[in-house]
Amino acid sequence: MKKIDLDTPALMLDIDQFNRNLEVMRDRAARAGKKLRPHAKTHKCPEIAWRQIAAGNCAGICAAKVSEATGLADAGIADILITSPVTTPEKIGRLMKLHAGLPGLMQVVDNCDNASALSAAALQTGTPLPVLVDLDPEMGRTGIRFADAPEFGRHIAELPGLKLMGIQCYCGHLQHIADFQERKSRSQSYMNAAARIVREFRAAGLNCEIFTGTGTGTSDADLAVPELTDIQVGSYCMMDAEYAAVTGPDGRPLDCLYPPALTMLASVVSANHNGYVTLDAGTKALYLTPAAPPRVIRDGKVLPGWTYDWFGDEHGRLSFPGGEKLRPGSKLELVVSHCDPTVNLFDEIFILRNGEVIDVWKIALRGCCR
Amino acid sequence: MKKIDLDTPALMLDIDQFNRNLEVMRDRAARAGKKLRPHAKTHKCPEIAWRQIAAGNCAGICAAKVSEATGLADAGIADILITSPVTTPEKIGRLMKLHAGLPGLMQVVDNCDNASALSAAALQTGTPLPVLVDLDPEMGRTGIRFADAPEFGRHIAELPGLKLMGIQCYCGHLQHIADFQERKSRSQSYMNAAARIVREFRAAGLNCEIFTGTGTGTSDADLAVPELTDIQVGSYCMMDAEYAAVTGPDGRPLDCLYPPALTMLASVVSANHNGYVTLDAGTKALYLTPAAPPRVIRDGKVLPGWTYDWFGDEHGRLSFPGGEKLRPGSKLELVVSHCDPTVNLFDEIFILRNGEVIDVWKIALRGCCR
Repeated sequence: MKKIDLDTPALMLDIDQFNRNLEVMRDRAARAGKKLRPHAKTHKCPEIAWRQIAAGNCAGICAAKVSEATGLADAGIADILITSPVTTPEKIGRLMKLHAGLPGLMQVVDNCDNASALSAAALQTGTPLPVLVDLDPEMGRTGIRFADAPEFGRHIAELPGLKLMGIQCYCGHLQHIADFQERKSRSQSYMNAAARIVREFRAAGLNCEIFTGTGTGTSDADLAVPELTDIQVGSYCMMDAEYAAVTGPDGRPLDCLYPPALTMLASVVSANHNGYVTLDAGTKALYLTPAAPPRVIRDGKVLPGWTYDWFGDEHGRLSFPGGEKLRPGSKLELVVSHCDPTVNLFDEIFILRNGEVIDVWKIALRGCCR
Repeated sequence: MKKIDLDTPALMLDIDQFNRNLEVMRDRAARAGKKLRPHAKTHKCPEIAWRQIAAGNCAGICAAKVSEATGLADAGIADILITSPVTTPEKIGRLMKLHAGLPGLMQVVDNCDNASALSAAALQTGTPLPVLVDLDPEMGRTGIRFADAPEFGRHIAELPGLKLMGIQCYCGHLQHIADFQERKSRSQSYMNAAARIVREFRAAGLNCEIFTGTGTGTSDADLAVPELTDIQVGSYCMMDAEYAAVTGPDGRPLDCLYPPALTMLASVVSANHNGYVTLDAGTKALYLTPAAPPRVIRDGKVLPGWTYDWFGDEHGRLSFPGGEKLRPGSKLELVVSHCDPTVNLFDEIFILRNGEVIDVWKIALRGCCR
């Protein structure tokens, strides 16, 4: 089947570009002496996680939620880090159920009461839970202040149900800074501060074999930090318009290094106006970042002057320069705004090679937000 | 099980409030001599569609896409209107498969070529496809200009595979105008213009037994239009913060007439800052309209000064006035920004009565965007 014959809206992944992106990130990390710990929150797809592992140089896979980790474990993946705190009795119960059969499971923690609750629960399973101290790089989302880390680390190390493994520092707020040099300088400043915590932990006799962090946007900057052990990159395997709008280490758009492998096919449902048509992909199919709207591509090239706007939950508005005739039923290919929440709207992704559909992968963790 | 023991984020529907909302809308329409044709795009839940039918005074159920209509038909619903044009060969194929076994299926159309394609496909099934002319109330999304409607109607009526049933006019762009009087005046102006098309159709001998349209925001205004036969209301059964931010016919917030039946339970995952905490519900669980952010409620009352902000794909930021202590693991209840795309992120909805979970309904049409 050709991609143009897919029912729309449809998510498509070019397998050759996907494989090249896996190889480029793997090789860049390996040259710096770092491992990958790819984040499954991006793709929600165990098949992709397995291919990331098979590409080599992986320390494990990251999950954002217990439900994501459960889905990865169900697919046979052994080494999983949950990158956000797990705090309610219900979630701690589910985490412990997973922990009991999965020695390679790790959990971040950023609060003493939560650490005590995890310790008490893990003691009942008979095996300490491996944990990382989550550091807050002044993003304020999760994590503890750098200044509080040494004391918190000592506290964790003393809890009988936990096994301190190291630290996590993820600068989510820096990933999309447009200029690479500014992104690099800001990220390295936080990651070097986190590296000092690693050295303090080690000097205090605390186990700190893991220092994990970074994303696709800051990966090149952070690979220069000696203490960093592995990188939690996500978007590099699929890519999107948000990352195409920032520069990479060579000053060119970051999607020159990691070209988009993920695209969406959409159709024209109405064409009664000049200069624009209505597409069948709206809020329920395509997460829109207004600052980095989807890009319309043809034969892999961005069509200049073509723009996608929000047109409701079911529809998008596609404007284009004169000269083109788009009829109802015409199909278009888009690079999506932001891959993670868009992928989360679909149950499957069509795998393409040279424009032919060669496989369908299940987005098995779709909807795993718990 | 009590609602507070649910794993989060979780969608919850208060069954008594839901039933009252069904009754209020049903009775208001009935008093005006109109039927309801509730829109399933809001709830994506066949159980809810059946309860809307059971509440009485329904002409049928609306679907936005062929895949939604297929899901409703699979659940045994017979009278379904697809409210957006269906234009590609793949979708027309699926539509015809549905049409062959479902005489109560209707489809809107806004383009001559598309009408010809539908006619040709329906001829092959041996049964004409009932269609409505989709009018464009200067929203520009789908539909034809009012001035073109009579000629288009005559064209449709002559196509052997189609059976003209009437018109649709949906003013999606007016639903959230804050002031009821302005909303009423603008909506009635379009709906009265559409009513003139109804009279023109009838004067020309064209069948026009159906004039369908309106949403929750404009329903009270449009019930005064004599020719209107039924209303495509959606949000009234669940409600959200967007509709709580506009006034109703009595000048009070619209959610005084239709109080929120849908809420979300979320948990605190991190609480290392003063004045705000991080929740476990982000972009992948809760569609955010920044102009009408979620409202935090306790015992059904909005907590003044409490605000939800975007904090990434997995997290929300909840700010609150001093005096309150929220620990990791604390749970909060939110009225969501916009029910439709939020419901579309979940596979099930927990049904509550007096704070107890009494049932779980499957959101079977979740992800049906094709």
